[in-house]
Amino acid sequence: MWTDALRTRAAHTLRMLAIDAVNEAKSGHPGAPMGLADLAVVLFGEHLNYDPSVPHWANRDRFVLSNGHASMLQYGALHLCGYGLSLEDLKAFRQLGSRTAGHPEYGLCPGVETTTGPLGQGFANAVGMALGGLMIRARLGTAGATLMDHQVYVILGDGCMMEGVTQEAASMAGHLGLSNLIAIYDDNGVTIDGRTDLSFSEDVPQRFQAMGWQVLHVDGHDQAAIKEVLTRARKEAERPVLVVAKTHIGWGSPNRQDTAKAHGEPLGAEETDATRAALGWNEEDFHVPADVKSAFEAQALRGRSRREAWTAELEKARDDASFAQAWRGCMEPPSLPDMGSIVEGLASKTDATRGLSGAALNALALEMPQLVGGSADLTGSNKSAIKDGGVVRKGHYEARNLHYGIREHAMGAICNGLARCGTLIPFGATFLAFSDYMRPPIRLAGLMKLRALTVFTHDSIGLGEDGPTHQPVEQLWALRLIPKLYVWRPADGCETAMAWAYASTQGEAAPHALVFTRQKLPPLPRRDPEGVWRGGYVVHEPQGDAEAVVIATGSEVSIALEAAQASSRRFRVVSMPCLERFLEQPEDVQQEVLPPSLPVASLEAGRTDPWALITGRNGLRIGIDSFGESAPYQDLYVHFGLDAPSVQKKLEDWLA
Amino acid sequence: MWTDALRTRAAHTLRMLAIDAVNEAKSGHPGAPMGLADLAVVLFGEHLNYDPSVPHWANRDRFVLSNGHASMLQYGALHLCGYGLSLEDLKAFRQLGSRTAGHPEYGLCPGVETTTGPLGQGFANAVGMALGGLMIRARLGTAGATLMDHQVYVILGDGCMMEGVTQEAASMAGHLGLSNLIAIYDDNGVTIDGRTDLSFSEDVPQRFQAMGWQVLHVDGHDQAAIKEVLTRARKEAERPVLVVAKTHIGWGSPNRQDTAKAHGEPLGAEETDATRAALGWNEEDFHVPADVKSAFEAQALRGRSRREAWTAELEKARDDASFAQAWRGCMEPPSLPDMGSIVEGLASKTDATRGLSGAALNALALEMPQLVGGSADLTGSNKSAIKDGGVVRKGHYEARNLHYGIREHAMGAICNGLARCGTLIPFGATFLAFSDYMRPPIRLAGLMKLRALTVFTHDSIGLGEDGPTHQPVEQLWALRLIPKLYVWRPADGCETAMAWAYASTQGEAAPHALVFTRQKLPPLPRRDPEGVWRGGYVVHEPQGDAEAVVIATGSEVSIALEAAQASSRRFRVVSMPCLERFLEQPEDVQQEVLPPSLPVASLEAGRTDPWALITGRNGLRIGIDSFGESAPYQDLYVHFGLDAPSVQKKLEDWLA
Repeated sequence: MWTDALRTRAAHTLRMLAIDAVNEAKSGHPGAPMGLADLAVVLFGEHLNYDPSVPHWANRDRFVLSNGHASMLQYGALHLCGYGLSLEDLKAFRQLGSRTAGHPEYGLCPGVETTTGPLGQGFANAVGMALGGLMIRARLGTAGATLMDHQVYVILGDGCMMEGVTQEAASMAGHLGLSNLIAIYDDNGVTIDGRTDLSFSEDVPQRFQAMGWQVLHVDGHDQAAIKEVLTRARKEAERPVLVVAKTHIGWGSPNRQDTAKAHGEPLGAEETDATRAALGWNEEDFHVPADVKSAFEAQALRGRSRREAWTAELEKARDDASFAQAWRGCMEPPSLPDMGSIVEGLASKTDATRGLSGAALNALALEMPQLVGGSADLTGSNKSAIKDGGVVRKGHYEARNLHYGIREHAMGAICNGLARCGTLIPFGATFLAFSDYMRPPIRLAGLMKLRALTVFTHDSIGLGEDGPTHQPVEQLWALRLIPKLYVWRPADGCETAMAWAYASTQGEAAPHALVFTRQKLPPLPRRDPEGVWRGGYVVHEPQGDAEAVVIATGSEVSIALEAAQASSRRFRVVSMPCLERFLEQPEDVQQEVLPPSLPVASLEAGRTDPWALITGRNGLRIGIDSFGESAPYQDLYVHFGLDAPSVQKKLEDWLA
Repeated sequence: MWTDALRTRAAHTLRMLAIDAVNEAKSGHPGAPMGLADLAVVLFGEHLNYDPSVPHWANRDRFVLSNGHASMLQYGALHLCGYGLSLEDLKAFRQLGSRTAGHPEYGLCPGVETTTGPLGQGFANAVGMALGGLMIRARLGTAGATLMDHQVYVILGDGCMMEGVTQEAASMAGHLGLSNLIAIYDDNGVTIDGRTDLSFSEDVPQRFQAMGWQVLHVDGHDQAAIKEVLTRARKEAERPVLVVAKTHIGWGSPNRQDTAKAHGEPLGAEETDATRAALGWNEEDFHVPADVKSAFEAQALRGRSRREAWTAELEKARDDASFAQAWRGCMEPPSLPDMGSIVEGLASKTDATRGLSGAALNALALEMPQLVGGSADLTGSNKSAIKDGGVVRKGHYEARNLHYGIREHAMGAICNGLARCGTLIPFGATFLAFSDYMRPPIRLAGLMKLRALTVFTHDSIGLGEDGPTHQPVEQLWALRLIPKLYVWRPADGCETAMAWAYASTQGEAAPHALVFTRQKLPPLPRRDPEGVWRGGYVVHEPQGDAEAVVIATGSEVSIALEAAQASSRRFRVVSMPCLERFLEQPEDVQQEVLPPSLPVASLEAGRTDPWALITGRNGLRIGIDSFGESAPYQDLYVHFGLDAPSVQKKLEDWLA
């Protein structure tokens, strides 16, 4: 069992592992792990529920290191806990192909719940995980109260604390009363540039109290006090808890403690020796005392028995049919509903794709309880409400509709956290122009391969009068540039339904951006649901051999069609709802749609340059390369030369 | 002079102008103008110092409408104030080519200080304007105390209040003690989705107090109280002030007041009639009572006399040589220093371009006091410090180095505000990967054509061990997609110096992103400072006629050179530090660099697809289309096939 001396030795073990690994890598951040080691020992050694033999146990406590640069703290702890992270892994810290990357990466390193590093993201992910935990707990009814009683712990530093996304997420956590969330603020008073008060002098506890948080304080180097405060925090039943832990960055290093130099530089041989001396640590590099290891193993074993008891309890609960159904609806992946009838219901409607999206979402949501989400205060505009889904609020977590508030950045990061809960498929909605507010979490969803969906409506100058601040121009391509992200821009009801279906159920887990119009569109003359999933397909073939191909997306497909049909030249029209899917197709499939012999023009109400990928350098690219303007959308389409007659003329001039 | 009855009539005038204009446009947001009208009358009619005949008077009070959707409030007020915005302009609200766009646009509408609409941006711009005001005041010494004593007013709504960028900027404003900033919170309890407490339940005053703000309260419909609170706020000498104004959205509309419906929908004929009746307004559409107009004109005349007195005072102050010099250094545009010696000093150095950037910045800063800026807590990594420039802190605004804290988003928006102060040329610095945190203000800088600079270091996998969360892949192209933004990625000292010089002094005002490496680079064999300004130029010509062109940027230029020089095939190597500048060149200049007869390959450690614009569909594009990895950078260049031997092989295979 843990004694004070053993705890101290364990903390020194974590400190020295961090020092050694950073020295070995000649790169990294030793200061925060050294300052947080006392806390981590109590947290991982005595407090958290986990079973390293089943790292994905559904009722494990979650741990997120939002200040991801302190990664060696987490790697050291995961090694001690027995997650299968070996000392060799620690020695390969920050090296090519190792599991111990510079910042913790989900999917790469066992026991890492989410990829952190960009500051504030981990904190907001943790808010999503806490919310998801409560939502799943609520769905599981009475049994959920014990089967899903885990907590979410997140450590954050001064950097996270200053980021706006943290504020947004904290405000939402306080509003929703996420009492299963415990945030530990590593209040060490030092950032990279020097003392925190160079740029930061607010009263953090007061700010969090203002947002409805319980705020506790602890000396981050007093392990008995830490144990007490964590126990108290776990008991809080109404509010999220912020534990303000006063720590010393680089604790134990005689010349670096409490300095910015401790933050991001290896200690080096000399200061490492001085630190060993100060800590009384007369061991080789990467040394782990046997009693420290076995103390952590004992905690892992306690977790294992808890997990086994839990499994038995779950099996019993499953005898209840309604529990079993609820379980399937949030802990097992959904299967694809019959799309035939859904497509049939939407394919011939004239409507804005945002409206068709609302219908498709609701049709899928009926059969997929996993779908949950909402809007950043544009529910009506985004058509993102799930009918009869209820609104998630404090004490009502069984609902499915989220009001994210006007917090796009946190919305994205909270979605990432929700996507790590059971098999929830979360979505967040706003205007496409404001995708700019949430690129960091979308990027991380790509990196983590999370099925986190975004609904972006008002997808071009087609939004009209709100003007250039609200009219996306570069956003479509800027999103397409994010690796692993699929960007869907459907042209009608069939495409909209199939885009939603693919995004929520098909392919490897990945983020999908679903992009919709404000303005009404006619249905396309040809339906090809499989073609939609292939990312691009022919919607119009001219009489006689085509002279050229016009590819278009979303609202511009019907304009391309109108132009092609009115023209005496022979244009094939291709709808390309998802370029990423199209580029995944075998070459022959691509060439069937875009024969290499034919010149290609592109039409999309956004930046044109990157379409050169498809059109070639001299292909015609019709779109908008400037900012938009404020006017009724029909006027804007004419003004920017994107109405059918203008497009027809440009296409004919190009072929001439 | 103002009487209570006249104030009420004036407020009704603003309300009805908003109702009429939104009805006429069949689009817009009447609710907030109706709720804020009482406040706006006191603010514009009695409180603000301005002279509409000289809208850019340097010591005018600034007004920012951060909740830009309430634009008709501002347009109505600007009309009354006499800014030359006619009733015809108001009738053309939200129509093509009008000055009264959906959201207020700087440069389009006189009296509009900054473009708002994306929520939170205006508030953070105002923080930048307040900071810039104090910085200029401090530089002007004793005379500055009276010559630059204007205040910055910003109205923000619940949306702005929830956005993270607002929190970041407010935290910095509190930290810096910006006592010339008065923020008025339109606390109306309603957002688009419904009651604010659907998603927002924090204690806003407490949050702002925690950040060092003075918080005052007022009934937003009691004009005497408003007058008193504004006077009190103006006197605050230590802290920024938040005035919490309790208002009723849609005030005066019998059936819409206090509802979300008032927010974003025209009232329509029936409810407009009901509102007229309720307000006792028996006038035609767009009616402005003569006494209301003349009361505002009187305020404008007071402003005019103040401005005239100010001009006389300024002329007197200018007799002092040191004042005159200080004035030139922040109120007149800089001229370009002699670049010859600066280039000479840097062009043969082997260094990271971030280091060369630090040197170039300092060389320019010596001769251009207008340059001010700093980093989001990465000063040492970004090499962004101005030596001997001092650090701006509360009461020390004469300095030039800003510590933005870990607040990239606010940094961008504060830079936009600073760029609206005198002739300051602000810059903000962080890692390129985190440009994602600040795209919204960069976009607005493009829309507003502000010379706001960003310094983005650690510009590729070349940053090494920090791994994929910190390694930009898509960011270079994602920035290039923003209209009006110039993206510079220099390859050596000469390019770095010339990029800084162009960005800070040349061309029309526009934002520039300056992108630099962490890793060291050799100097290029050929110097062509004018070529740098043209955006692309030849750095290597093979023996004999070139068979192909390789274009590269930044750290990849020297790799392309090494590959070309080692190859038996004949490659011309082109450095392209600024694609936007290159594409602005006449076609013959472009073709001199890239002869249409030659195939083109591109080499850049980032997303490849959009380079098809230059290489064509079948050209070779070498780069990275996945996320990066954590490892020493040399290993990564080999791993991703971007080292010289790999590049040489790819180029030769392509030609074969």
